[in-house]
Amino acid sequence: MTNATSKVEIDGLMAELAALARISEAEPPIVTRVVFSESDLRARAYVKGLCAAAGLTVREDAVGNTFARWSGSEPGLAPVATGSHIDAIPNAGAYDGTVGVLGGLEAIRALQRAGFQPRRSIELVLFTSEEPTRFGIGCLGSRMMGGVLAPDQARMLRDREGRSLDELRNQAGFSGELESVLLPSGHFHSFVELHIEQGPQLELEGLDLGIVTHIAAPASLKVLIEGEGGHAGAMLMPVRHDALAAAAELILALESAARSTGVIDTVATVGVCDVFPGAVNSVPSRVRLETDIRDTDQARRDGVVARLKETAAEVAARRGVRISFETVNADPPATCDATVLDAVQAAVNDAGRTSKRMVSRAYHDSLFVARIAPVAMIFTPCRAGVSHRPDEFASPEWIAAGVDVLARTLARLSE
Amino acid sequence: MTNATSKVEIDGLMAELAALARISEAEPPIVTRVVFSESDLRARAYVKGLCAAAGLTVREDAVGNTFARWSGSEPGLAPVATGSHIDAIPNAGAYDGTVGVLGGLEAIRALQRAGFQPRRSIELVLFTSEEPTRFGIGCLGSRMMGGVLAPDQARMLRDREGRSLDELRNQAGFSGELESVLLPSGHFHSFVELHIEQGPQLELEGLDLGIVTHIAAPASLKVLIEGEGGHAGAMLMPVRHDALAAAAELILALESAARSTGVIDTVATVGVCDVFPGAVNSVPSRVRLETDIRDTDQARRDGVVARLKETAAEVAARRGVRISFETVNADPPATCDATVLDAVQAAVNDAGRTSKRMVSRAYHDSLFVARIAPVAMIFTPCRAGVSHRPDEFASPEWIAAGVDVLARTLARLSE
Repeated sequence: MTNATSKVEIDGLMAELAALARISEAEPPIVTRVVFSESDLRARAYVKGLCAAAGLTVREDAVGNTFARWSGSEPGLAPVATGSHIDAIPNAGAYDGTVGVLGGLEAIRALQRAGFQPRRSIELVLFTSEEPTRFGIGCLGSRMMGGVLAPDQARMLRDREGRSLDELRNQAGFSGELESVLLPSGHFHSFVELHIEQGPQLELEGLDLGIVTHIAAPASLKVLIEGEGGHAGAMLMPVRHDALAAAAELILALESAARSTGVIDTVATVGVCDVFPGAVNSVPSRVRLETDIRDTDQARRDGVVARLKETAAEVAARRGVRISFETVNADPPATCDATVLDAVQAAVNDAGRTSKRMVSRAYHDSLFVARIAPVAMIFTPCRAGVSHRPDEFASPEWIAAGVDVLARTLARLSE
Repeated sequence: MTNATSKVEIDGLMAELAALARISEAEPPIVTRVVFSESDLRARAYVKGLCAAAGLTVREDAVGNTFARWSGSEPGLAPVATGSHIDAIPNAGAYDGTVGVLGGLEAIRALQRAGFQPRRSIELVLFTSEEPTRFGIGCLGSRMMGGVLAPDQARMLRDREGRSLDELRNQAGFSGELESVLLPSGHFHSFVELHIEQGPQLELEGLDLGIVTHIAAPASLKVLIEGEGGHAGAMLMPVRHDALAAAAELILALESAARSTGVIDTVATVGVCDVFPGAVNSVPSRVRLETDIRDTDQARRDGVVARLKETAAEVAARRGVRISFETVNADPPATCDATVLDAVQAAVNDAGRTSKRMVSRAYHDSLFVARIAPVAMIFTPCRAGVSHRPDEFASPEWIAAGVDVLARTLARLSE
C-alpha cells in the first residue's frame, strides 16, 4: 500500500461549495434543490463543468446518476469510486451531500496535484435524488443502481403533482431504459463516501473524523387517514369523523413509541401532514402523513412501526375513520466492509488525524451501493449536529481533513 | 301588506344552478371557486348576464360586491335586498350560497312573471368572498359593507402566496377606493337571505323551511407553532422541539374543549395544518394551524378559545416551542329583525308551507349586513345536512318552496 500524499486546496473547494449553495430555489442562505428542478439541473451542469476542467470523463445513466472518471494506468480494472448527492430538501443547508461530491472531486484533484497516478480508475459518482422530497423515496439513484428498486417499481413513482419519474427524467434530459441503471456486483472495486456527520458527536469529542461502520436502518411509511368532511359550523361534534384529529393521535403515538424503546438510537418523525380539503371552515375529510422511523437495530425499529399500526387500528375503530399504510421503504442496515475500513483507518493514521468508529443514524447512498460493492464512509464534524437547515455548517478545517483522508484512502484502494 | 303570488320556474333555476356548478377549478361534481380566480370571474359574468337578461341594472363596488336592481315605482326609497355568495371552498358542492344568488334572482323573475310591481326597488346582492379560503377571513364583502372590517385592515390582507387584496381585486377588474364599500345604516330597507340549512334538522323533521332567528357567533384563530427543525435521522428524540407534535396536542385539546362544554351547540375545527419544511426526513420546525370555533353563545365560545390558549401555554413550556395566536375574527352573534321575520312568517303562511324557527350554526353574509339593515334568513333543507362537499344536495322541491317564500317576502317588504 502506498502512503500517497494529497494537496488539498481548501479555499477553492469552499468557494465551490458556496457557489453550489447559491444554485437554489430559495434565497441564500437557504438551499432548496429538488431533483430534476431547474436548480438541480443547473447545479449538475456546474459540477460536470468542474469535472471536465479536472480532465475527468463524464457519463450519465438513465436516471441521472453521473460518473466522472479519472482513468487509471490499468483502465480495464474495476474502478474505485467515491461520491454523494447534490439534491437538497426544502430549506436545507450547503454541506449535506455536496461535501461528498465537490470534496470527492477535490480529493481527485489533490492527488493529481501531488503527482499521484492511480492503477485502478477513480470515479466520482453524483447520485440522483438521495433526498425523498420529490418521489417520497430516498436514495433513488443508488437504490436503482444497487438493485433495491426495480425498474417496474420506479416507473410507478409519481411526485405530488402526479408527474411520473419517466416524464420528469426525460424532461431533464435523461433517457434510455431504466433497466440499464442497475450495476453488477463487482462493477466497482470499492466505494467510499465522505459526508458531514449530521450529528453532534465528533464536534463534542473534538475529533477530526468519524469512520462509519454501520448505517442505520430507515423505514418510511405513508399513512392515509380517511374520515368524513363537512361544514365546520354545521357538522356537530358527536357525528364527526375528523381525519386531522385522528392524524393528531397518530403523530403523538409515533413520538411516544420512539421515545419509549429505552435506547437513544430510536428516532421517529412525521415530516409531512397534508390536509384535505384544507379550508379553515371545513372538517378535514382526508389527511396524508409521511413518517420516517430509524434505528440501528432493525427489530427495534420494526417494533415501533408495529406499535404505530396497533394505535392506528384502535383510533380507526374508535373514530370511525379508515387508516391505511403504504411502506415506501423498510431497508435493512448496512455494514461497512472491513478491507475498505482498513484503508480509511490507514489513511487517517498517515494523515495524523484523530477519529472514532461510529454508526450513521442518517441513511446515505452508501447504504445501497453496499449491495454491489464493498463500502465505507468518512464523517466530518458539523456544527452542533445541525443539518437539513440553512444554518448547517462545517468549517474549512474539518472539510480539509476529510478530503485529505478521502484522497489518501482512494489512493490506497486504487493501487 | 300584499298577498303577492309568484311564478317560480324551478326547472330553469335548477339548470342555472347546474351550469354555475360547472364553472369550477375542479372536475364535476366538485365545485372549487376561490374568490378572484378565473372560475370566480367567469361565474360572476354568468350571473351578471342572467341579471341583465331579467332587466336588472348591475353595479359593482370596489371589492366586487355586485348589486342588481329591479327598480320600484318609487326608486328614491331604500331598496329591499336579497342575496348571498357564489364563491366555494375547495372540494365543495353546488348549492351553498348559489341558492341565495340564483334563487334570489329567480324570486325577482317569479314576481315579474306574476305581474307584481314593487314600490321599493328590489336588489339582488352577490357578496365577495363569503368563504375564507383565500384571505383567511370569511364574509369579506359583507364585512366591509357592514363596517366590521376597516379599509386599512382590508389592505393588509394577503393570500397564501403573499398577494394583497388590492392587487387581486384590481387584477379582477375592481378598482376604486375601499372606503366606498361601506354602506350607511338605512341604505337597505331590509335584507333577506335564502340559504341551504347545512344541517340535518329540516329534513329530519320533514319541514319545508327554516326561519332563522339568530346566527351563531364564529371565531377564527390562526396558530403559529415554532419549534426547531433538523435531520429526521440524526436529531435524537430528547433534544427535539417538534412543531408538528406540539400542533397535534393543540388539535386534540381544541376538539376536547369543544366536546366538553356540555351543549351540542359548540363546534371547533382545525381545517388547515401547514407544515414547514414539509419533508419526510426533516423534523418540522414550524406549523401553522387555522381554527374555527363557533357557538350560539358567545361567552361559551370564548371559553373554548381560552381553554385552547391555556393548553398552548402548557405545551409551549413543556416542549420548548413558541406558540402565538392571531385572532382573524371573533364576531358577536346576530339577531334577526322582528319585522322582517314577521314578513317571512306571513309569506310562509300565504304559501301554505311548514316551517320552524331555528338558529344558524353556520355564519352567513347576513351576519354582517345586520350591522346596517334589519335582516332575516330563510333556510331550505339539504340532504343529510351535508355541505362543503361535492355530494351537497337540495331537491328542486325544497328549492322551489324556498324561492317562492322568498319572492312573497320580498313582495311584502317592497310594498
